[in-house]
Amino acid sequence: MAETMIPKATAKRLPLYYRYLTFLANAGTTKVSSTELAEAVKVDSATIRRDFSYFGALGKRGYGYDVMDLIKFFKKILNQDKLTSVGLVGVGNLGHALLNYNFRQTNNIRISAGFDVNPEIANTIQSGVPIYPMADMVTQLREQQIEIVILTVPTDAAQAITNDLVKAGIKGIMNFTPLRISVPSYVRVQNVDLATELQTLIYFLQHYGPTLNDAELGDN
Amino acid sequence: MAETMIPKATAKRLPLYYRYLTFLANAGTTKVSSTELAEAVKVDSATIRRDFSYFGALGKRGYGYDVMDLIKFFKKILNQDKLTSVGLVGVGNLGHALLNYNFRQTNNIRISAGFDVNPEIANTIQSGVPIYPMADMVTQLREQQIEIVILTVPTDAAQAITNDLVKAGIKGIMNFTPLRISVPSYVRVQNVDLATELQTLIYFLQHYGPTLNDAELGDN
Repeated sequence: MAETMIPKATAKRLPLYYRYLTFLANAGTTKVSSTELAEAVKVDSATIRRDFSYFGALGKRGYGYDVMDLIKFFKKILNQDKLTSVGLVGVGNLGHALLNYNFRQTNNIRISAGFDVNPEIANTIQSGVPIYPMADMVTQLREQQIEIVILTVPTDAAQAITNDLVKAGIKGIMNFTPLRISVPSYVRVQNVDLATELQTLIYFLQHYGPTLNDAELGDN
Repeated sequence: MAETMIPKATAKRLPLYYRYLTFLANAGTTKVSSTELAEAVKVDSATIRRDFSYFGALGKRGYGYDVMDLIKFFKKILNQDKLTSVGLVGVGNLGHALLNYNFRQTNNIRISAGFDVNPEIANTIQSGVPIYPMADMVTQLREQQIEIVILTVPTDAAQAITNDLVKAGIKGIMNFTPLRISVPSYVRVQNVDLATELQTLIYFLQHYGPTLNDAELGDN
């Protein structure tokens, strides 16, 4: 596929573009310039034009981009026409919040199964999602053909559970624990370390002051 | 200060190093090699040695680094000897989870005030933190000299509230809303967009397959 050749930095910006374009379409907007898009998503317009150029000439000079054309295009690239089911491992405070987080708003993603050691919530339905006991995790993930999980378990349990996830055939883990988990090379891990994110923000404020903007920080 | 000259990529890794070193110290470990550290934090050892070299010759060849020396050093750089108070704006599902999130475990950060429109929780204490009505936000942030907030409000309220935060003198915002908020150049924004993070993970799995590791994804 042609899109496998696009730079990784571009690939990381695609969901952001897609979300904003959906927002525009919902508001009834039919055309958008790279400058308007730049202002909204906080990516400079030259970068946006270069990103879009990897997919062919989508815009016309002095005319802007057709919002619906772009959406159709990104929908296909981002595989939005197919629902992606993900598992949630660990239904504590953060897990509960994620069950109620609207991943579907502009992304075709659904948490379809949860797993927890707590006998009070195992075998119940929470926010519309069945919660299974940990003993059933490997079986259920296999049966439901879930390949991606969100990991929100206590740090000291994270690696042992990760090993089970690998046995269950998981291919991707969104890791909310502060532990950098070890996985085989064919499993992808996306770390979301909230304390480190906040610490980094504080560090940059104290040491770099006001001049450095978000893009320079290397945020996606 | 010397540390203001270190590369931004290095600065982003400091909280990660600090967290793992604290973990080692708690486990009674006194020496660590760059190879061991590399395995634990998933950063290659050459990068770690280069990062550490910005702070002077902290390790001895074939001997490794002294864990407590490193911790003392990072503690000073990361300003861990001083408690940083942050505000939480929006105490819904995600906000509640963040109130219970252990930011203090290895980071000297505390959520010291929350703000919400919901009259049922305004003027109550939740998880030990006072929740004020939104009408009191600007006054309380100024009085408590809070310069950093976590923003977990509904998307359609995010920009108006951000404008008030700027009026209150906020310097840094950790933004959990999918909106890319507009702020003056002296305010730093760290975006944590969970749906986009998950979408990116799925996209990379589908298009790049198993060969690309976390570091190459540009994750911090």
